[in-house]
Formats: sequence, C-alpha cells, structure tokens
Amino acid sequence: MTLAAGRPYLAIPGPSVIPDRVLRAMHRGSPNIYEGPLIELVAGLMPDLRLVAGTTGHVAIYIGNGHAGWEAANANLFNRGDRALVLAVGQFGLSWANSARAMGVEVEVMDFGKSSPVDMGRVEAALRADTGHRIKAVLTTQVDTASSIKTDIPSLRAAMDAAGHPALLAVDCIASLGCDEFRMDDWGVDVMVSACQKGLMTPPGLAFVWFSEAARLRCGRSDLATPYWAWGPRAEPEEFWQLWDGTAPTSHLYGLREALDMIAEEGLPQVWARHHTLARTVWAAFDAWGAGNPAIAMNVADPAHRGWSVTAARLGAPHATRLRDWCEKQAGVTLGIGLGMAPSTDPAYHGFLRVGHMGHVNAHMTLGALAVMEAGMIALDIPHGEGALSAAVRVIGTGA
Amino acid sequence: MTLAAGRPYLAIPGPSVIPDRVLRAMHRGSPNIYEGPLIELVAGLMPDLRLVAGTTGHVAIYIGNGHAGWEAANANLFNRGDRALVLAVGQFGLSWANSARAMGVEVEVMDFGKSSPVDMGRVEAALRADTGHRIKAVLTTQVDTASSIKTDIPSLRAAMDAAGHPALLAVDCIASLGCDEFRMDDWGVDVMVSACQKGLMTPPGLAFVWFSEAARLRCGRSDLATPYWAWGPRAEPEEFWQLWDGTAPTSHLYGLREALDMIAEEGLPQVWARHHTLARTVWAAFDAWGAGNPAIAMNVADPAHRGWSVTAARLGAPHATRLRDWCEKQAGVTLGIGLGMAPSTDPAYHGFLRVGHMGHVNAHMTLGALAVMEAGMIALDIPHGEGALSAAVRVIGTGA
Amino acid sequence: MTLAAGRPYLAIPGPSVIPDRVLRAMHRGSPNIYEGPLIELVAGLMPDLRLVAGTTGHVAIYIGNGHAGWEAANANLFNRGDRALVLAVGQFGLSWANSARAMGVEVEVMDFGKSSPVDMGRVEAALRADTGHRIKAVLTTQVDTASSIKTDIPSLRAAMDAAGHPALLAVDCIASLGCDEFRMDDWGVDVMVSACQKGLMTPPGLAFVWFSEAARLRCGRSDLATPYWAWGPRAEPEEFWQLWDGTAPTSHLYGLREALDMIAEEGLPQVWARHHTLARTVWAAFDAWGAGNPAIAMNVADPAHRGWSVTAARLGAPHATRLRDWCEKQAGVTLGIGLGMAPSTDPAYHGFLRVGHMGHVNAHMTLGALAVMEAGMIALDIPHGEGALSAAVRVIGTGA
Amino acid sequence: MTLAAGRPYLAIPGPSVIPDRVLRAMHRGSPNIYEGPLIELVAGLMPDLRLVAGTTGHVAIYIGNGHAGWEAANANLFNRGDRALVLAVGQFGLSWANSARAMGVEVEVMDFGKSSPVDMGRVEAALRADTGHRIKAVLTTQVDTASSIKTDIPSLRAAMDAAGHPALLAVDCIASLGCDEFRMDDWGVDVMVSACQKGLMTPPGLAFVWFSEAARLRCGRSDLATPYWAWGPRAEPEEFWQLWDGTAPTSHLYGLREALDMIAEEGLPQVWARHHTLARTVWAAFDAWGAGNPAIAMNVADPAHRGWSVTAARLGAPHATRLRDWCEKQAGVTLGIGLGMAPSTDPAYHGFLRVGHMGHVNAHMTLGALAVMEAGMIALDIPHGEGALSAAVRVIGTGA
Repeated sequence: MTLAAGRPYLAIPGPSVIPDRVLRAMHRGSPNIYEGPLIELVAGLMPDLRLVAGTTGHVAIYIGNGHAGWEAANANLFNRGDRALVLAVGQFGLSWANSARAMGVEVEVMDFGKSSPVDMGRVEAALRADTGHRIKAVLTTQVDTASSIKTDIPSLRAAMDAAGHPALLAVDCIASLGCDEFRMDDWGVDVMVSACQKGLMTPPGLAFVWFSEAARLRCGRSDLATPYWAWGPRAEPEEFWQLWDGTAPTSHLYGLREALDMIAEEGLPQVWARHHTLARTVWAAFDAWGAGNPAIAMNVADPAHRGWSVTAARLGAPHATRLRDWCEKQAGVTLGIGLGMAPSTDPAYHGFLRVGHMGHVNAHMTLGALAVMEAGMIALDIPHGEGALSAAVRVIGTGA
Repeated sequence: MTLAAGRPYLAIPGPSVIPDRVLRAMHRGSPNIYEGPLIELVAGLMPDLRLVAGTTGHVAIYIGNGHAGWEAANANLFNRGDRALVLAVGQFGLSWANSARAMGVEVEVMDFGKSSPVDMGRVEAALRADTGHRIKAVLTTQVDTASSIKTDIPSLRAAMDAAGHPALLAVDCIASLGCDEFRMDDWGVDVMVSACQKGLMTPPGLAFVWFSEAARLRCGRSDLATPYWAWGPRAEPEEFWQLWDGTAPTSHLYGLREALDMIAEEGLPQVWARHHTLARTVWAAFDAWGAGNPAIAMNVADPAHRGWSVTAARLGAPHATRLRDWCEKQAGVTLGIGLGMAPSTDPAYHGFLRVGHMGHVNAHMTLGALAVMEAGMIALDIPHGEGALSAAVRVIGTGA
Repeated sequence: MTLAAGRPYLAIPGPSVIPDRVLRAMHRGSPNIYEGPLIELVAGLMPDLRLVAGTTGHVAIYIGNGHAGWEAANANLFNRGDRALVLAVGQFGLSWANSARAMGVEVEVMDFGKSSPVDMGRVEAALRADTGHRIKAVLTTQVDTASSIKTDIPSLRAAMDAAGHPALLAVDCIASLGCDEFRMDDWGVDVMVSACQKGLMTPPGLAFVWFSEAARLRCGRSDLATPYWAWGPRAEPEEFWQLWDGTAPTSHLYGLREALDMIAEEGLPQVWARHHTLARTVWAAFDAWGAGNPAIAMNVADPAHRGWSVTAARLGAPHATRLRDWCEKQAGVTLGIGLGMAPSTDPAYHGFLRVGHMGHVNAHMTLGALAVMEAGMIALDIPHGEGALSAAVRVIGTGA
Repeated sequence: MTLAAGRPYLAIPGPSVIPDRVLRAMHRGSPNIYEGPLIELVAGLMPDLRLVAGTTGHVAIYIGNGHAGWEAANANLFNRGDRALVLAVGQFGLSWANSARAMGVEVEVMDFGKSSPVDMGRVEAALRADTGHRIKAVLTTQVDTASSIKTDIPSLRAAMDAAGHPALLAVDCIASLGCDEFRMDDWGVDVMVSACQKGLMTPPGLAFVWFSEAARLRCGRSDLATPYWAWGPRAEPEEFWQLWDGTAPTSHLYGLREALDMIAEEGLPQVWARHHTLARTVWAAFDAWGAGNPAIAMNVADPAHRGWSVTAARLGAPHATRLRDWCEKQAGVTLGIGLGMAPSTDPAYHGFLRVGHMGHVNAHMTLGALAVMEAGMIALDIPHGEGALSAAVRVIGTGA
C-alpha cells in the first residue's frame, strides 16, 4: 500500500511549488506584443522587481535560468582578462567561478569548504593584498543552494570597505531572493543575480540582474557583453523588444506579475519572517532527530549561518536516499538530493539530503513534510532522536 | 505574522480537494454534444461508475448535488403515500427523511442519537412489527457526514433478511463512496445514492443513483417520478440527451472521467486501505490529545463505527471554533465546522469540529493537518494530551 | 488533407463557446464553504443576475440544466391539477409542456407549427374563452432553440392584458438570455427560466428561475414544490446551504461570476446589439445563398421573428448533414444539427442545420463560420447563390 | 458598438496561437527534477525534435528566444575573427548579422533588399571569389518574418556546392519550422536555428540549435562558446542539468511535448500542406484586393518565393495601421505590424502589415481573418478589389 495518492508536495530547493494563482495567470493565449495590456503589465513589473531586491537601481530580465543570470552578470561586469574574487561555501560559488573562467575572466577562488561560512577576515586580507586593485569584482552567494550556508552580506561589504578596495560586490540571490532578508542598496551591493523559480514562485525560465548606477558606469561596455547578455538595452530599452533582445516571454510575464502581486499582498518583511519561522521549524526537528544520534545533523552548525529557504542535512548513507524514496513513493513528499557533498557515484552521496522551504510554503506544508520524514525513519528503521515533531510544532505554535 | 501563505489545505468533509489532474481535465471548451469524443467518453463512464459502487446494476447520473440525489432516489422509490423507514445517526439521515416527507412519503424515523450506531436489533424488531409490509424501503447513510458514524450495511441487510421483510434497502454513500469499503451487490443493497464532490474528487455538481434490476422492477413508474428525477431514461437512454434530461454537464464529465481514472490506477481496494490508514492516523492523534483530557474526544467511541472519510470531534466550546480560525488564518488548513451537534446559534456549537480525510488525500496532507492542529492548540492554550503526532506518525510509519 | 487543425469553433446553439477567462476562473480548488470569499462572491452574484434579467424580483439558482429549470418553474407555479397554456413554436415549448404534464399539470398546447410565430390574436381569444380563469399560467419560449423563432413578449403581455386574464406569464429565455433584448419587469413577465450554458457563457450545470414578488405571492406553497425545487429558500435563504439545497456548485459559481463580469464590462445593451448585428450577418449570407436557389432557406421568413442567438435553416437532405461533417472535419467549425424539423430516423432530417451565434462570439468567429460553410458548399457541390460573404462582410463593415 | 467580444484571434507572425492542449499541459506544478516522469519526457523529446527538423544530427535546447538561438549558433560556429557570409532578404538576416558582428565575427552581408529573393548566382560568385576559404559559414533565413521572403535552401546548397566552397550552411527557421517544408539532412544544411513560439505552438521561451555531426567536428571548441551557449553538453549531456546548463524549463517542456504530439498526430507533411493551402488562401484574397487597385499588394510578387507562415503586404499609409486597429478593436483579430519596410517613426510605416498563418491555424481562423479585413476596408473606406473572399473560399473548397 502507498499513502502517496493525494496532492504531492515538492520540498526541494527549487524549482519551488508554483502557486495555483500563478499557474492560472499563465494559462493564457499569446497576446498582442506590439501594444496594449502586455506593454502595460511589463511597465508595472519593473518597480516591483526593484522593490523585492531593495534597490532603486536597474534591472535586466533575461529569458534563461540561474546559469544564464551568472553569465549575464559576468558578461557585463568583466572584460576578457579582468580578475574576479569568488567566495565559495558549497557548490554554486564554484559554478559561478567556472562560468566566469570559461568566459575568459581570471578567477581567484577562496573556498571555505562545504560547511563553514565565509571568513571575512580572510577576505579583507586578500583584498588588502591586492594592492594593484586588479580584482574588479567579488562574487558570492547569499545562500548556497547546495550547502544552505548563508553569507553575511553586510559583513562582507564591511570587510571590503575596511580593505579600502574598490571591487564591485556581486551577489547571487538565486536561492534566497524573496525568502531571506536582502537589501541591495542598504547593504552596498552593486550587482545582484537571481531567477524566478525559487522565492519568486514562477516556473523556471527567467533570470534577473539588478545593477546599481555606479556599477553601470564602472562596467561601461564590456567586450564580453554580447547582444543577448548586454544589460544596457534590457534595463533601458528604446523599444519593447529590447527588453528581451527579441520575443518577450509572454507566459512567464503573466506568472511573474501574479507572483509579485502575492508578495506585495503579504508584504516582503512578512515573507521573510515566514521563511525564518519555517526554517526554524525544520531546524528544531533536525536538532531533535540528531540529539543523541550524531549520524543525523544539519550541514551548518550555527543557525546564524543557515539560509532560510533550504536546509542541507546528513543522515548517513544510504539512509538519505532511502528516506527520499520512501517519502515520495509512500507519502507524497519529494525531498532534495544532497548536492556537492559527495559525487553522485560515491556511496557517501546517499547520506545527504536537502529540505526546501522556499516561496509558496506554509506551516501545513512544512510540518507535514517533517512528519512524513519521521514516519519514513520509522518505516525504514533509521535511528533518530525523539520529540522532533513536538519541537517543530512548538516553533509554529509559540513563534519561539 | 501568519504562516498561512502557501498552498491552502481544505480538510473539510466535502467538497474535498480537487486533484490538479481533474481541474486540468475540466479546463476545456464546450465540445460537440451530438457525436464524437464526448459520446465515447460517456459510454466509458458507465462501467466505471458501476465498478466503484460494486454493482452490475443500473446507474443514473443527475446534474445536482447530494440533496438532488436523495430526491431522485425518493422520486423513484416511492409513490405518494408510501412508507419509508429511516435510520438516523446524525444529521443526514434526518435530512433525507425530511426530503421524503416533503415529497409526500410517510416517513418513520428511528433516531439513534448523534454518537451511537444503528441498533440492528431494534431495526429487525421494527420490521417484524410491520406485518403488513407497509414499509417500502429502509433508508440509511453509510457514513453520516455530520456525526462520522458508519452504519454496518451487511449487518443491516442481515437484520432485514432475518425479519423476512421485503423492503428495499437504500443507502446514502455521499460521504463514503470511494473512501470506505462498499460492495452494493455483495451486500444486498438495492439503491445507492452518492455525489461527485467527496470520494469522487470532482467539483460539486453531479449526483448519482445506482439501482438494481430488482429495484427497477419493484419501483415501476412512481407517481413522484417527474421527468427530471425518473431514473429510467437516464439509466437506459434511447438518445444521448436523455442521460441528463437535457444538456449534458460537459465540464463535469471530463472531470469525473479523470477522477475515475485515478481511482482505477490506484485500485479501489488500495483507495479504501489508504483511507482506513489515514483515518486511523487521525484517530491516533485524537486519542492522544484526549488522554487525561476528557474535554477532547472523538464523537464516535468505537473505531468500528467510525467512517474512514471524516472524523467528528469535540474540543469544548469555544475551543473548536477558535482552533478552526487559527488553523486557517495562521497555518493554511481549513477544518470542517461541527454540524448537527448543537445549533449554530448555541454557544456549544463552538465546541465541535470535523476533520475531512476523503478523496485526494495522502500522508503528507493528513499529518500536516494534525501537526497544524497541535500547533494551534499550543498557540491558543487549549489543553491537550501529549504525543499525538508521534502516535500519528507511528501509524503511517508502521501501518499498525 | 484536412484544414481543421487549429482552434476548433463550436457554432452550435449551446453549450456555447466558454471564454478562456471563465475557464480560468473555474480552474480552482474547492474553497471554504462556511465563510470567507465564496460567501461574498455569491452575495455579489444576485444583483448581477437580476440585472441581466431586467428585474428587481427574486432569483433562485439550481444545480441543473434547462430541463431542471422548467421543472423548477413548474413545481412552484402549479399545484397538481392546475392548468397551463403553452404556446409552442418549435421544439422546446412542447418539451416544457411535456414536463408540466408529467408532473400532473393539466396542459393545453397551442402549437403554431415550426416556422410561424405565435399568433397573438389566437392567444387572446383563448384566454378570453377561459372565462373561469382556470389557466394559471401561460408558458412560452422567448427564442425556441430548435426553430429559432422569437416570440414577441411585450405583444404577448398585451394580448393577455387585453383579454383581462390573470394568468401568470412565464417565459423560457434559455436560448436568449444575454443575447436577445429581454426586460422582465418592463415587459410584465412574472416568471423567467434560463440556464448558464448559452448567453451566460458558463459550462452547463446551472439553471435559474427569476420570479416577481407577485408571482411569489400568487404561487404560495405549491404541492409540487419538493425541497429541491421550492424557490423560496433558494431566493431568500436563512443559511448559505439553502441557496442550493445542499452543497454549493463552487466551480460554476466562479465561472458565472467571471461571465457576469464580462457582460457588465461590455454593457448589456451592447451585448444585445452585438448579437443582433452578428445575427444579421448570418441572415445576409443565407439570403444570398438562397437567392435563386430555393433549396436553401432560413426557417423563419420574417427577420422580426428570428432570434438573435441561433439561426435554423434548410439546405435540403442530405446536404445539411454532409456540410456539417465537412465543416467539422475539414475546416474546424461544428454546426448544430437540425432539431424537431424531422425525426432523426427520417432522411429529411439531413436537410436541416442550425448556426449558433450566442454568447462569446465576435465578427471573426461568425464571418469565419460563414466562409467555411461556403467553402464546404463548393467542396461538396451544393448549389448556392453567390455573394453571401460579400453581403455578410458588408453588414459588419457598415453595420447596415 | 464593437463586434470584438468573443474569442480574440491573434494573426501575427509569432508568438502564434497556443493550442488549448498545450496551455493545459503547461498548467502543472513543479516536478521532481532529479528522477521520474520529467526525465523520461525529456528523453522522448529529442527524437521528435530531430524528426521535425528532418535530421539524424544533434539538437541543443536553450532557455531563450530566437535571438538567443542566433547567439548560440554563432558562439559554436565561429571563433573570434572568423568570417561569415550573411544573405539578407528583409530584417532578420540583418539582425543575425548584427548579432555575429557584435560577438566578434567578421561579417559580410549580401543584402537583396526587402522584396527580392536571394540571387543564387551572386552567392555562388561570392563564394568562388573567396579563394582562401575565409568564409566559415553562410547564414540565411528560410523565411524572413518581416518580408515573408522564402529562401530556396536546396538551391542555396547547390550554389555552395557549385562554388566548391567548404563553408557551413546555417539556416534560421524560426519563422518556418513546422510550417514550411524543411529537410535538414536531405538539403545539406549543417546548422539550423529555431524557437518554440511559432510553428511549434509553445509560448516563447525555448530556442533550438540543430547541428550535424560534421558541423560539430568542424566547429570544435569555439572561443566564443561560453558555458551557456556551448552546444556540446546540451546535445550530449552526462547529467540531466547539462541539457539546460542549470535548471530545466519544466513548464515549457510539458508544453513542447504536447505540441510535438499534435504535429505527430497530424503528420508533418500534412502540417506543411495545411500551411501551404492556408497561405494560398491569404494570397488569393490579396490578389483580389489588389486587382485594379495597385495600392494593395503583397510584398513578394512571386508565390514561389513566399513563405507559408506569414504574408507581408502593403496597403498604403495610413491604411495598414488603421485597418489593424479596426480589426482588433471592432472584430477581434490582431494583425502583425509591418516590420523593416519603413522606420516606425516614418509615416510610410503605417502602410504595411503582416498576416500570420502559422502553427495552430485552420480554415476557420484564416477565412475569418480575411473576412474581417474586408469588413474593415469597407468600414474605413479603404479602396480594394472585389471578390477576395470568394477567391479565398474557392482555395479552401477546391484545394486549387
């Protein structure tokens, strides 16, 4: 027998659950792309995209995924041969570094491992050591989707300032925008990259690059900025088609409009608070499961360094894979695979998983996922500490 | 702050959660109603509707809700002035009785209260006492949606047989079809009424009356059988329009087709087993909440007499209403109101609620609802026993 | 080769084309049926339903189709044995008569044939002859969907008034509401029946009965008014469930809300004018096809007596059936079958068809259907007059 | 009054009408992206994408629009400084040239104007003149969406062969794939670029590059091939994510799957034949409107050089713009703007329009659009020849 029939819940760190409202908004034939409602809809998107990023700067929309967003940022930030400093705390900083390197950027990676946050002292030292100011930009993730490590962006800005280094600060918020608090202008971020399929609750297909006026002036016209990647015409188009360098992503625009409306209706600070509480709910459960049972542990020890949208954890191989299978096939919950902790060809790979709690997620979804995980541990005889659900429920019930 | 943003879960005893597949199937323009695919689709529905009811008999489809189903059954079962024996164990037997009475049927109600099952001995005695066989049919609910009491249909059939009474047995399976085990032919049921919006996972709008060949012959042409209610042409139409006495419910037919496919794919016995296990999960939680805390209790003490699709419970006024409000507004779960236990104008009304676990429901949805309820009890300081979620999770994890 | 791939156009006289907006609105999970947005939505429907009927009276909504609407009207209008005068000009007056008769009403039918309008003089005479005022109500169609004959309701009212007869006037606007001009109060109509699947652009599933306060008082509590049909609680419910005598048709309510919004946005007089112009477009084409070619002719000779939502026509057997087949399979247009002109078992049956132009229909859809019909006549060597499309286009282009 | 209420018809040359089936397929929540049905769906897409292009070669899918497709092709075809020969017959060859030039390719454009086809003799001569074989590839459009000129690809291949030039042949089929006959392998095409939003009937968001094994070997690893554009991993991925260089475009994959199913059900040769006939229908109307009235004329005089998916035409300023406005606002048909014939700031701009007849289009849609255009000409007093609709209908009815 399986108890999975019913609405499946996808608790992976993206693509996230698409709200019914967004799906309904996208269920729409092709519109007039020359004039009328679509043009007005797009005009309204821009201020709302700025709002969600906390900036009065520019935003360029790309038909693409997160990797496209990196490439777009790279293409505008750098000329061939420019130097980048990449801060890696998991998988995706490394991937961004690879993207830049393959495009002809000279990349220096500071790798802080898979479970530790960025060491701001080392960053500051590295920047001070770059006396020739060869480093044009520092690239980092706010939340690394693989490790779930959160980088403290204001501290990073402070370190850069302390070093007196003029490098631009470019942040990947793909896994965190619309989940974790982020304030581009207040925090002195020059360039920010994100995509629509996580906190922005829209099916994969759009990437975004926000950039400050200062960044625009500093970057000028890069020799990497091909017509598709150049951010200028997209952010300040003379004609509508330049927003997308060609045909508009009509269906996604309807979806994004609805998703941004939902965020506005709830209120961005409330969206962040919801993610924070739900994250703490998940953490409380893992703390209990791992108490007296060190085989189970979250990847990031210190809650201050954990992202609010995804929790990477270790269960010991092959338990994580077995539990993922059970939850999907027996109970209707799909959890994320472990990523970057061990190669997928390695037995150790089966010891990691990730719980997504991003975007269109509420107490019911999260508590249900945790309860299903515990049921699976029982079904599969995976040793685990007691009291996880009581602890989780207490976070929801008391807010503490 | 609210933690309700995200997918809402409607845990009421109907209308139940409509599967995305069903909604998608219904998102379809009007078809050719004279020939082609729609006609073929309808031809395929009939055997599947028989299968889900466990009968080789007839089935008539009505555009209507459950009340329409009662009226349709009444109109065919009875002539004006005929006598019915109604067995009531909650709200809906009484409502069916009212319907029959208003149509001119002479109705005798045996009311077993709100929390006790049908006493088969009393039924047998009543039938024996009807030496003139004036009672033409015995009407009862398999599961009363208000009280969640299940009537043991095979025992009822046995009591009728023991009494040697020729009355027809008519059962309302509105709240139970596609949830609780039901075998119309094996159990000797003559007429069965149901609707599409609960176990059949389709938006409200269709009612069904299944009837055996014997019932058809016994009932003949009732003087209550108006064109809309007469089951003959609907079950054995000469022309397509007679199936619906007019225009076909095109949109609902697409939905019903998809829902019946889903049941067939899962397998009806597995569907029943899933509902049984999920019901036991809910019961385990209530047992724990009520342990040492008699204010909280399920309405039906004996699990053998509880339906598998809905659980009515008492929390003490005004706790039930407060908890319902909290779950919906703070956590995304809508629970059912108490029905028939106290008038809605009475303070005691706020002491009851119902949890629906019918149709498109899985371990994640059910466990999440229970966890949310416990979070709400904590938030609202509603005294409750410990260990409910552990107990619930154990049912899922062990099947025991 | 077929040229039918592409969006099919259903040009039958109902169910009509469902607007994408309506389908999208219906693509929605089950809501809380106890409180919240659904309750508010329903409150807003009532004034808009009155508006579309042109009345300040009552409206009862039924889960059902048009036949259910007749039965509902009959059940409230009549007591068993009451007398009705039915004016028949095609198929559906006769069907309504049959419905009433089967329910126990004594029905007198005045049948004006299939192609001639109601003769008001004969009606007045009949009413005058009923000196005992045994006739409780006069029943008629505004537009008979089969014959496409329109009955002049103000003239009928005048005839009844001239006769000084107190009978209630009950009109079936199933095929005309939201298409042809109709003003219930201004025209002295006491009871009006309609359904949602034609001019109201919603999938089949809802019927409506509007009734004046005078009708309510005159009818009192009929002995035919079973709980499902009684209009009182539906029009003036004490509790929400009484609006539907049970479970609400949630999905249809969302659809109807959207459809009424669309009518309000366009403006009811403009909706009528659009139907009138599109009807004249169809008529212009038929006039041309039939010029010098008497085998092709519209069923109703005088435009003043033609409905604005459907046009019945004769092409000669078997041309109509062949043309219908060709249009659907080769060009993507489904036309309506002829109805009531000849039995479907008679060869003559294949000589009739109907073009629907009701509800969500515009110049493109109508002109395209006419052009496809002419292409089919060419393909099938069906003799026809020239210039039909030029004539049709001229109606659209000049409005004349 | 407006006669536009009803289903709007978007007759622009892309994005084209999205079939309801495709929209329904896309109305689906996010799936498991690690394993299960999505992975299988994608595996099935590849052979069908090859089939529609007529190749056994490779195909790379990009999240992007047509411009992204050009950039992807350029990035793999060329190293910085390589030389391209671009054949321009309207707007989009020039745009592709601009894209290549901006990426660092040395581009030679042969511009044949806006209304004349490629002169194969001149191409052959140019290639012969390139004795050093500096030209690495010849780029051209099969159908230029702006001018609607079709390039005869087999003749172009013959010219290249006659010149004995080793340049690769790269063709943009954005406006023609799934509309006009195209046989990549048979015609000796090395690289082909297309996108999903025209003949492939899916909302904008996917671009495709097909390439032969020979092209793959010739191109090797270009220094322009950034990670996002490199076709190797996309066409021959080791892991699923490499197909998209990151997150999969889940929603679009469901849509594309359905669209390819529709093409397979109809049969690709039949799809081409349908487009050809519908194109001839449009041409017949324009021929009649323009007869004796030279202000109205199609842009391409010779039908052999006209694409089957779009027809560009001249009506004289400001008639084209006025007619477009009237058709949309009064009759529900949106026509395409003229593109590339005159700057949008020039009064002459208002003299051109385009009719799209691509993808999900049938006789009803096309004939309806033509009839609406004629109605508009009448309404706006735009002089035009007689008999256009009769001529158009004759094409459909006789196939001739």
